[in-house]
Amino acid sequence: MPDKAWTLAELAELSGARLHGDPDCLIEGVGSLDEARPGQISFLASRRFRPYLADTRASAVILAPQFVDACPCNALVHDNPSLAYALIAARLCPEPMPAPGVHPSAVVDPDAEIDPGARIEAHCTIGAGVRIAAGVWIGPNCVIADDCELGEDSRLVASVTLGRGTRLGRRCLIHPGAVLGADGFGLANDQGRWVKIPQLGRVVLGDDVEVGACTTIDRGALKDTVLHDGVKLDNQIQIGHNVEVGAHTAMASGVGVSGSTRIGAHCTLAGAAGLAGHLELADGVHISGLTAVTRSIKEPGVYTSTVPAVPHAVWGRNFARIKQLDELFRRVKALEKALAEADAKEPD
Amino acid sequence: MPDKAWTLAELAELSGARLHGDPDCLIEGVGSLDEARPGQISFLASRRFRPYLADTRASAVILAPQFVDACPCNALVHDNPSLAYALIAARLCPEPMPAPGVHPSAVVDPDAEIDPGARIEAHCTIGAGVRIAAGVWIGPNCVIADDCELGEDSRLVASVTLGRGTRLGRRCLIHPGAVLGADGFGLANDQGRWVKIPQLGRVVLGDDVEVGACTTIDRGALKDTVLHDGVKLDNQIQIGHNVEVGAHTAMASGVGVSGSTRIGAHCTLAGAAGLAGHLELADGVHISGLTAVTRSIKEPGVYTSTVPAVPHAVWGRNFARIKQLDELFRRVKALEKALAEADAKEPD
Amino acid sequence: MPDKAWTLAELAELSGARLHGDPDCLIEGVGSLDEARPGQISFLASRRFRPYLADTRASAVILAPQFVDACPCNALVHDNPSLAYALIAARLCPEPMPAPGVHPSAVVDPDAEIDPGARIEAHCTIGAGVRIAAGVWIGPNCVIADDCELGEDSRLVASVTLGRGTRLGRRCLIHPGAVLGADGFGLANDQGRWVKIPQLGRVVLGDDVEVGACTTIDRGALKDTVLHDGVKLDNQIQIGHNVEVGAHTAMASGVGVSGSTRIGAHCTLAGAAGLAGHLELADGVHISGLTAVTRSIKEPGVYTSTVPAVPHAVWGRNFARIKQLDELFRRVKALEKALAEADAKEPD
Repeated sequence: MPDKAWTLAELAELSGARLHGDPDCLIEGVGSLDEARPGQISFLASRRFRPYLADTRASAVILAPQFVDACPCNALVHDNPSLAYALIAARLCPEPMPAPGVHPSAVVDPDAEIDPGARIEAHCTIGAGVRIAAGVWIGPNCVIADDCELGEDSRLVASVTLGRGTRLGRRCLIHPGAVLGADGFGLANDQGRWVKIPQLGRVVLGDDVEVGACTTIDRGALKDTVLHDGVKLDNQIQIGHNVEVGAHTAMASGVGVSGSTRIGAHCTLAGAAGLAGHLELADGVHISGLTAVTRSIKEPGVYTSTVPAVPHAVWGRNFARIKQLDELFRRVKALEKALAEADAKEPD
Repeated sequence: MPDKAWTLAELAELSGARLHGDPDCLIEGVGSLDEARPGQISFLASRRFRPYLADTRASAVILAPQFVDACPCNALVHDNPSLAYALIAARLCPEPMPAPGVHPSAVVDPDAEIDPGARIEAHCTIGAGVRIAAGVWIGPNCVIADDCELGEDSRLVASVTLGRGTRLGRRCLIHPGAVLGADGFGLANDQGRWVKIPQLGRVVLGDDVEVGACTTIDRGALKDTVLHDGVKLDNQIQIGHNVEVGAHTAMASGVGVSGSTRIGAHCTLAGAAGLAGHLELADGVHISGLTAVTRSIKEPGVYTSTVPAVPHAVWGRNFARIKQLDELFRRVKALEKALAEADAKEPD
Repeated sequence: MPDKAWTLAELAELSGARLHGDPDCLIEGVGSLDEARPGQISFLASRRFRPYLADTRASAVILAPQFVDACPCNALVHDNPSLAYALIAARLCPEPMPAPGVHPSAVVDPDAEIDPGARIEAHCTIGAGVRIAAGVWIGPNCVIADDCELGEDSRLVASVTLGRGTRLGRRCLIHPGAVLGADGFGLANDQGRWVKIPQLGRVVLGDDVEVGACTTIDRGALKDTVLHDGVKLDNQIQIGHNVEVGAHTAMASGVGVSGSTRIGAHCTLAGAAGLAGHLELADGVHISGLTAVTRSIKEPGVYTSTVPAVPHAVWGRNFARIKQLDELFRRVKALEKALAEADAKEPD
């Protein structure tokens, strides 16, 4: 993996960590606490992995201050060890773009503008009016329809499809199977038959947006679907037409956002959360996994409707009762009234 | 966008709208109420956008009768403005197929029959026995396995995969990443090990079926999986083997339909609804978002089990109680009995 | 479909079924009870199809012992008719790999090792260091990134993408649109901005693993994501980074498994079940459809939190009550206390 080695002093500096130990210790790779070899750096991401610390063979460990006394080797101490690890691992295990150029099997429309510093791999198909900036890396078997624009250093890993007019900022990263710019689901009903509403908007991504495998982002109906800078989407997410996602919001796998919903900045949506259409979520809203959001949320905070699993027999006894809940509330109210009346009648 | 301009009189006629204003006004495109320019037509889709009407710069607006008095410009009045807009936008912003022909990079089996009026784009792979009718438009990087049939004017946008024997009617529209005709999930269990049951049926689509991005429709096990005329599927839907979907039924993103379930005509399934296998849904059934359908539904109507999000603290207090519901019902019953006995004992 | 015919005696022997009827009867294909023709064999998979048995035109039917007396033709009797059918259908309707070889349109890195007994179809892109064993069948438009390894007789049907270093055992079957080895969703937060954690592990599949259409399996962050022998995944499943799935576990469509969760052997997860991260599920755990698993499960058994659909009016009355449940419990407790005090006061 690694191209070269770095001293602990260098890694401490790039990550902003405090070094405990030998600044000249050479590190050439990363490994988990239990599998790292000498010459590798590891990290203690959570209390869960604490038992592996004592026996690690790593040359150094990235960890939070409370664990430094228990560290048997060199330590890089950081209040946010995951962040320090992210920065160090990116330095030790970079994935640089190979040489630029267009593979001879790619089919590129003569009206596309491909910067000579971009790389287009095998079996790509690139339409008219496409503009691809320097440092862009298009992996194999991607389709880029007419009039797309890709900003500097963006990457389509492989097998990505961009619909007409899709626009990516700089340093975007799109994983295989993702589809940006398919038609939104816009239909009018004509006496029982569906008539398609032309989908004329685009998908527009800011800088540093990441889109997971098989995630789909629909083009707008008239205006655009917009993901602002730093949005991170996991796999198999669906973003409907005309959705707007604020900067630095992250969504885990399986989330669905219905059309025209606007999500604020710095939100998180956990796995398989579902949002109805035409809602507004404030900045700093956090939605739990498998939660249905059916109304706008104006206050930051955590919102949940996850229903946790129970043994099937427990479920059988209790869940059928949900549809009798209103009746139960009325029965309890009647009891309260009866008891109050009985009390009133009592002589004492 | 537009190739030419149309008079308002022409647009009124094609959409069946009543014209208020200048019949000779020329329209050459569409725009939202707040962004439309002169020469464009806009529409008022819902009360939500009513505030933008007064200041629109559009040359005309499509709207419902109750808004006509508030319209500052020409108006096309229709009881179903979305439908009128759909028809007009399709006229103003058509997306016609470019010239027919087979791209030299496409790999077409010599035993495939491609009508000379069809278009096959770059990097497509087309198997033996495939039959493609006139007006069919296959975008780049599609795979069409042996023995598929595509009816007139159907379109695979790009990166679509059709398994062996898949059959599309006329005017079908399949979005990128969709997979029709993969194996159904059929397994027999042999003392703990799974043995694959060969999946020998096909996927058969009627006319005017639309299939969204990354939607999967499995081939039947023995008989076919069938979607009737006018069915509309959004993105990331899963249709299991041997499912039958009635005409003009629409499903939003993330719906899953398990094997052998039969859905009637003119149904709607909202986002992320899930249907168990071997069910029957009548015509005109509407399923809400994130709703689990575990039994057949014989009466038309709306069915729901969406659990709406609440602040996390409210959730923490209440949702754990669901698994004690049956106990609570029994406690209330005991109270009712005790109170009834107490009443009976009372002297008055 | 069939290449040749088999006698019922031969089919009885290969499936372990008991033959009732003519051992020399020739069978050349399979069909459903209501559509089978003479010369075909059918099967009675469940009581649901019992009404079709009397009128079948099949030459033989595979069925369970209790139905043999009602069978109007030859019968193959087996305690597990689905298993017997699976074995017989595979024999009657095999899908053998066509001739090996590399299609001229495939782009294969010179440093890839392709066994001459493998088949690589059109528009595939295969990276450096890839090793492909004999009998492997790569359908059209697949991407296999650097350093992948595919064991004997594995098959990528079409349009499959394997990320760098993905390893498949023998006889794996991967359906179109599946993506194995995309980056896991690993992010560190730096004062509101997300910083990517490099994803350095791999995806490793055992033997006889099946992966459905548009299913995504993420590479590990440091260690590998591992699916053991005989795991069967339906379509549109998401497996997060560092997940481990035990042997012969099966998951239906739409399941999501969050990162670092470990699932035992011989489990089943029904459609759209969702598992939180960092959990452990014992062997033999069965999760119902649309169920949220938020804690580890140590005992085998069935676990459920499916909330079944009800008519919308019933839902409207009752589901809003869930968020008042804790209050209701306290009201009932107060009633119980009040009644107990009233009882204590009573003179009798």
